[in-house]
Amino acid sequence: MPFCDEQLTRLKPLWTRMLGHRFLTETRDGAMPDERFAVWMRQDYLFVEAAIPFIAALIPRAPRAHWSPLAGVIAALEKELQLFEERAAAVGVTLRGTPAAFTNHAYIQFLMATAYRASYAEAYTVLYAAEKAYHDSWKVVRAGLDRESKWHPLVENWAGDAFAQYVGYLEGELNALAEQAGADERTRMGEYFELTTKYEIAFWEMAATGEDWPGCNSQ
Amino acid sequence: MPFCDEQLTRLKPLWTRMLGHRFLTETRDGAMPDERFAVWMRQDYLFVEAAIPFIAALIPRAPRAHWSPLAGVIAALEKELQLFEERAAAVGVTLRGTPAAFTNHAYIQFLMATAYRASYAEAYTVLYAAEKAYHDSWKVVRAGLDRESKWHPLVENWAGDAFAQYVGYLEGELNALAEQAGADERTRMGEYFELTTKYEIAFWEMAATGEDWPGCNSQ
Amino acid sequence: MPFCDEQLTRLKPLWTRMLGHRFLTETRDGAMPDERFAVWMRQDYLFVEAAIPFIAALIPRAPRAHWSPLAGVIAALEKELQLFEERAAAVGVTLRGTPAAFTNHAYIQFLMATAYRASYAEAYTVLYAAEKAYHDSWKVVRAGLDRESKWHPLVENWAGDAFAQYVGYLEGELNALAEQAGADERTRMGEYFELTTKYEIAFWEMAATGEDWPGCNSQ
Amino acid sequence: MPFCDEQLTRLKPLWTRMLGHRFLTETRDGAMPDERFAVWMRQDYLFVEAAIPFIAALIPRAPRAHWSPLAGVIAALEKELQLFEERAAAVGVTLRGTPAAFTNHAYIQFLMATAYRASYAEAYTVLYAAEKAYHDSWKVVRAGLDRESKWHPLVENWAGDAFAQYVGYLEGELNALAEQAGADERTRMGEYFELTTKYEIAFWEMAATGEDWPGCNSQ
Repeated sequence: MPFCDEQLTRLKPLWTRMLGHRFLTETRDGAMPDERFAVWMRQDYLFVEAAIPFIAALIPRAPRAHWSPLAGVIAALEKELQLFEERAAAVGVTLRGTPAAFTNHAYIQFLMATAYRASYAEAYTVLYAAEKAYHDSWKVVRAGLDRESKWHPLVENWAGDAFAQYVGYLEGELNALAEQAGADERTRMGEYFELTTKYEIAFWEMAATGEDWPGCNSQ
Repeated sequence: MPFCDEQLTRLKPLWTRMLGHRFLTETRDGAMPDERFAVWMRQDYLFVEAAIPFIAALIPRAPRAHWSPLAGVIAALEKELQLFEERAAAVGVTLRGTPAAFTNHAYIQFLMATAYRASYAEAYTVLYAAEKAYHDSWKVVRAGLDRESKWHPLVENWAGDAFAQYVGYLEGELNALAEQAGADERTRMGEYFELTTKYEIAFWEMAATGEDWPGCNSQ
Repeated sequence: MPFCDEQLTRLKPLWTRMLGHRFLTETRDGAMPDERFAVWMRQDYLFVEAAIPFIAALIPRAPRAHWSPLAGVIAALEKELQLFEERAAAVGVTLRGTPAAFTNHAYIQFLMATAYRASYAEAYTVLYAAEKAYHDSWKVVRAGLDRESKWHPLVENWAGDAFAQYVGYLEGELNALAEQAGADERTRMGEYFELTTKYEIAFWEMAATGEDWPGCNSQ
Repeated sequence: MPFCDEQLTRLKPLWTRMLGHRFLTETRDGAMPDERFAVWMRQDYLFVEAAIPFIAALIPRAPRAHWSPLAGVIAALEKELQLFEERAAAVGVTLRGTPAAFTNHAYIQFLMATAYRASYAEAYTVLYAAEKAYHDSWKVVRAGLDRESKWHPLVENWAGDAFAQYVGYLEGELNALAEQAGADERTRMGEYFELTTKYEIAFWEMAATGEDWPGCNSQ
């Protein structure tokens, strides 16, 4: 079985938990308060921005054939940031000025540490798993979202066909990397897949609860 | 004012919150259940182990005069691991086999990402702040701990004179690095100091609550 | 005095030696045999390609305001590669299939090691010095080159106005970084400037002599 | 065939060229002028020092079981530096104050760039090939060297049994890494083996000719 199918099968319970997260279902059902959604927007804006140096750090460790596609991902991330800014302006949300919440900061550190320290195939696993998670998660939201919703353009960005095609490309490349990998590296790739899924779930949890740095908010 | 004094003054409320964390006061007062302390031991064992590659990653970016002291830190960390193993054996705790909890995993990623990506002076700030936090925190515990406590040797390791001397050495070096730094870098060093303190607090919180990956335990 | 002026003054003898290198003057005067120029083309094609991961590795260590300009440099390098391919096709030179000569390999290692290990301002110094060296060197060639020369489009690429503007932008940014740097870092930036100039001279020397790996060619 | 045997067979002509280099044979035969040998000593002192950050950079990318052995290599390199200093003092050579020659600088950049950018197995290949090259090269010298030679302690350091044992350990580990590697990675490991051998030959050539930065000395 190709690596991605194998992992998505192995991690089915975790993946299902992610797709059923109340942040997604409540957004889908129009039950998410605007201010709570805005909290997510501000954090995700920071996360998308932080993905740029992650992708850049992959390039020197990537095979030559991946350099241009990865540079293309950087350009796509810059466009995503503009989409956030356009949406935020349209609905009156102030995007900038909020520091990264704990889970967001942690996830960003995980991206960067992996880009530098892990093997390229391991780091590419994180890239794929994060993008696949976003695609599948926002498809859950799109399935029930009012098309007139002010969040629709953001949802469509990740749930739509262009993003699906991009995720499909990543999947093919990751399967090829996994085929070239030795048994130990392939096992570690699976561990990175699982870790990324857990960070994704933590991210939805942060968005739903408004969590911040542990031990710093409570009195 | 030297950089470290300046930061410890600026971050006093955060530092005080850290030193007053219930994990420390309850351990000091003998009110910490053994099983809860064992949870901390297993996590901190993983963290100390993970500090080895963090220190190693600093060496290529350090001035020549820091190479031997940093290699000495690696040796000291290996000894700390032995101390954990010796204590664990003495009290019947199984150290190995537990995966890193969320906050622990996140903190380790922060160390590694910083070692690779930040300037050397910024990364050295993280090293100092983490060691200073440990020294001060365990001095809180030692102040009231029964000397016959089975945890005493661990507490003494960080609260004792040898560690105090090491922290003093780091402080002198960090102050010197800050003096050489430009204004912008010095500001970023302060941000890293604050972030490290917040990760330290999150670590005590994790130890006190037995928290695990957000959104993965509930149900 | 701004940092770049200061260094170009300090390193004047070295810079003059570079600009007077016979590879440049003979190319300018139409005295460079095609096959020798083709040797340079093949090596420089490899070097331009290798500059892509160098730039990518800078992004995660750069201030946010540099991310887009650096991504723009990657795009410009891809265009330079196409220019090489177009020129090579036009004059019947086979670009690919030649391994990096010793000096070329070494220079590429210097770029990558610096991107990862040095401070950002130090690594940016290498970027500026290399681009400034190219601009000035090819202006020497352009000054006397027959405009009908088949090499003219390549020469114009680096000697022309667009490239001049780009080098001017880098100069402004590097001067700003140097102003923010402490005294020690500024000294090291000067050392990197000098080293880069020496690698540039070595590169022209390699092109002029057809040098390969030392001790490997002689019988 | 184990990876190391396979490579040493494949690269036999290059390896033979290295072992027959006149720097080695003339040193063996007592025909090497002291001042020429001192040039090598000063350069190799810089190279051994630069190997410390190379080894340190490997640790975060190494499997856990390699951390202590690699820390041990750092300690061994510090001892080698002391041996150089002791020998230099004994024979009246000033070790410090000479900048790295071109080939030396280049080789050091190759080490660092590889440690950061290549896979761990590829970087470990460079470590093994460099140490194996030193062991075999100095055995050539020891075979004919007067035991009363003032250089004997240096020669013995790399030609002796302790170093042989260390090289044997590296060989076993590298063979194991190669067995775990996929086909593409294994091919790249072979390329790194070859490159390292070529840098070693270039190093002897530099020592024999007193070469410096190309294009900078002539006139």
